[in-house]
Amino acid sequence: MRPQDVIRKKRDGARLTQREIQFFVDGVASGGLADYQASALLMAIFLKGMSADETAMLTDAMLHSGEILDFSDIQRPKVDKHSTGGVGDKTSLILAPLAAACGAAVPMISGRGLGHTGGTLDKLESIPGYRVHLSVAEFREILKQVGFAMMGQTKEIAPADKKLYALRDATATVEAIPLIVASIMSKKLAAGLGALVLDVKTGSGAFMSNEDDARELALALVATGNSFGVHTEALLTDMSQPLGRAVGHAIEVRECIDILRGEENERARPVKELSLELAARMVALSGIASSLEAARERVQDALQSGDALECFRKNVEAQGGDPRVCDNPKQLLPLTEREVKVESTHIGFIESVDAAEIGNTIASIGGGRLRIEDRIDPAVGFASEVKIGDQIKAGDTLGLLYCRDEAQAQAASDRIRAAYKISGEHASAPTLIKEVIKK
Amino acid sequence: MRPQDVIRKKRDGARLTQREIQFFVDGVASGGLADYQASALLMAIFLKGMSADETAMLTDAMLHSGEILDFSDIQRPKVDKHSTGGVGDKTSLILAPLAAACGAAVPMISGRGLGHTGGTLDKLESIPGYRVHLSVAEFREILKQVGFAMMGQTKEIAPADKKLYALRDATATVEAIPLIVASIMSKKLAAGLGALVLDVKTGSGAFMSNEDDARELALALVATGNSFGVHTEALLTDMSQPLGRAVGHAIEVRECIDILRGEENERARPVKELSLELAARMVALSGIASSLEAARERVQDALQSGDALECFRKNVEAQGGDPRVCDNPKQLLPLTEREVKVESTHIGFIESVDAAEIGNTIASIGGGRLRIEDRIDPAVGFASEVKIGDQIKAGDTLGLLYCRDEAQAQAASDRIRAAYKISGEHASAPTLIKEVIKK
Repeated sequence: MRPQDVIRKKRDGARLTQREIQFFVDGVASGGLADYQASALLMAIFLKGMSADETAMLTDAMLHSGEILDFSDIQRPKVDKHSTGGVGDKTSLILAPLAAACGAAVPMISGRGLGHTGGTLDKLESIPGYRVHLSVAEFREILKQVGFAMMGQTKEIAPADKKLYALRDATATVEAIPLIVASIMSKKLAAGLGALVLDVKTGSGAFMSNEDDARELALALVATGNSFGVHTEALLTDMSQPLGRAVGHAIEVRECIDILRGEENERARPVKELSLELAARMVALSGIASSLEAARERVQDALQSGDALECFRKNVEAQGGDPRVCDNPKQLLPLTEREVKVESTHIGFIESVDAAEIGNTIASIGGGRLRIEDRIDPAVGFASEVKIGDQIKAGDTLGLLYCRDEAQAQAASDRIRAAYKISGEHASAPTLIKEVIKK
Repeated sequence: MRPQDVIRKKRDGARLTQREIQFFVDGVASGGLADYQASALLMAIFLKGMSADETAMLTDAMLHSGEILDFSDIQRPKVDKHSTGGVGDKTSLILAPLAAACGAAVPMISGRGLGHTGGTLDKLESIPGYRVHLSVAEFREILKQVGFAMMGQTKEIAPADKKLYALRDATATVEAIPLIVASIMSKKLAAGLGALVLDVKTGSGAFMSNEDDARELALALVATGNSFGVHTEALLTDMSQPLGRAVGHAIEVRECIDILRGEENERARPVKELSLELAARMVALSGIASSLEAARERVQDALQSGDALECFRKNVEAQGGDPRVCDNPKQLLPLTEREVKVESTHIGFIESVDAAEIGNTIASIGGGRLRIEDRIDPAVGFASEVKIGDQIKAGDTLGLLYCRDEAQAQAASDRIRAAYKISGEHASAPTLIKEVIKK
């Protein structure tokens, strides 16, 4: 088989065979295929697409480029959630203990933040002592004992994806649905799941801002997951503004612990609502509850009884973190001393928010990465005090900015202020959960 | 400027700016742009196309990646021909002396054969002693003294093209019209021409077998040439069967010298007809004759008077070859001793010929290259004795094969026999010159 013949075939819009897809993925993983041939094929896939079958074959080849974890010795149903990422998206820290408290095992292999979105691993590392670099043996033990465990991608899992992702990033071929699906699903399938819930975000803070594109992605993810025998569902959810109040690292973990502690906060309510719904679907899909309604009750109970908080505490302790963070989050998860009120200069209604710009602003003052080797400052962040549809007047607080120095304060305040579009007309709040996509 | 942003723009079908195209070509020439980024952009260009403006800017950037030859000290009008290549396509050896004998200067920078087509340089090298590796100073001197000179591509001319071509070949992005145009025209424009005639071939032995594609290419070449102030015309010509009788190296040079010597051969007539017409257009376009009719007469006179043959003789001598080849081509351009009759096993009419297969067959027995470093055997070849539309009976000779050994004779005969499709129905001969494409 010659690489250029496979490239030509996809270039001309034809369907690739299992052997051709395998040849491509093997070549990428082994280095036997030149990068310039891989990138030409990526662009052809980007522009000509792949059928559901081809996407499943690509996923399968990428999955088998590495190890598949075997948790069959753990009796609990294995279930996970994956989000396509957004600003202030912190549901993993709430839904994992919720689902675990209901009897699921959640083997969550997460990523780092890059660009305008934060990463679950980075957020967890703002808890003093918390370790995300676990061996597979440690991960398995914590999963067994606690019901959920959190770790980073290992180099043994879907190694072809890592190389392909770097190429896609350098060649403007990231946003192709078959490539996104294979990248997400090959890693998730490597954790040996029985069920998977996807949170596909759409809006100004999502990677797919267009709702139709996001729906297409959700459909492809659900089809692929189910074709591998994994019960898969997706929620299409709003990312037209930061999710909840907190954007940052320590500040987001605080918000999660507050929710697990049962503290009520109007601005944080969407985080709670979405986390509970995602957890309920995980519990239902994995067969722990007999219906979605029953699952919702189980999850609600796990929250109100404090079982989920206890589960979170056990996880923090098992992963080397200071469990007292659950009792006193403000003290153990400090923000910067500098707190700056970002005030509106206009009167009217919040019409829209450039959520990606808020994410990028926090990243620019240390709360994110521009390069993968950058270090995160967990103490910077933003607490948004208004949401789309709110009526405000000049001088009202849009939010509180936590940063290190005066220059940052000025520049970041200006950027955040400009990210809020205020209009004279009534604006309606977006629907948080737009659609449920099932098999 | 970031490479991925330029790639993204073309990927989304937008028009690239002069600066972006320059950035791409400079990056390719200097090695500053990664090959995998260049190839992703090549695929995006392949699938999304380029406007006439973008194609001209790409040509210009590639042209200026290297040296431009300055022949302004030579008073004669500078004019050249370029063919997109075919099987038995040997017109350069006839039209260059014809145009030179009429007063033109033809600075012909030619290529090597690769794949199923032969190269002018390889054919010339079958003349004992003939040198195609000239310095620019030698080339200039021969051009001045003789009126035409032949040499290979130098590494100083359009170096970006060489790198891009290698990438295109490895990534199935060769057949994109803007890329073909920029590749051809950047090299031709580097010779400082005033006029250029293009021979764009279509049919089974052409790189663009489809006539519509060939026409689109011809239009783009003509538009680009004229946008650089070079009087450019194209002929769309038939390549549905080998051009003339001879396919090979020594055998093709023999055919050319025979034509220049005025010897008549029915099977070689299309070569003569096309060479005369191309030469006439070169003479007319460069302003030597006041009309195409007048140019045709001038060219005819140059042939009949023997001036063109004398011009060819001078060139051979100037480039180190044995000029007696003009008097005794059969003796100085030997074929293999083994001559095999390829006979028809069918009765009927020649309906079609797979000209590329004939080219590939001759290449496979030493008359072509599979890799650029392969050596050519000038003495192998094929003399085709029938053409499309001819009526034949079983046992009639399709042609004579010149090869080295019995195994070759058997395999090559079978392939060539199979390349002729014989049918019971009358078939009409194709038109040699299908269309003239002007500004």
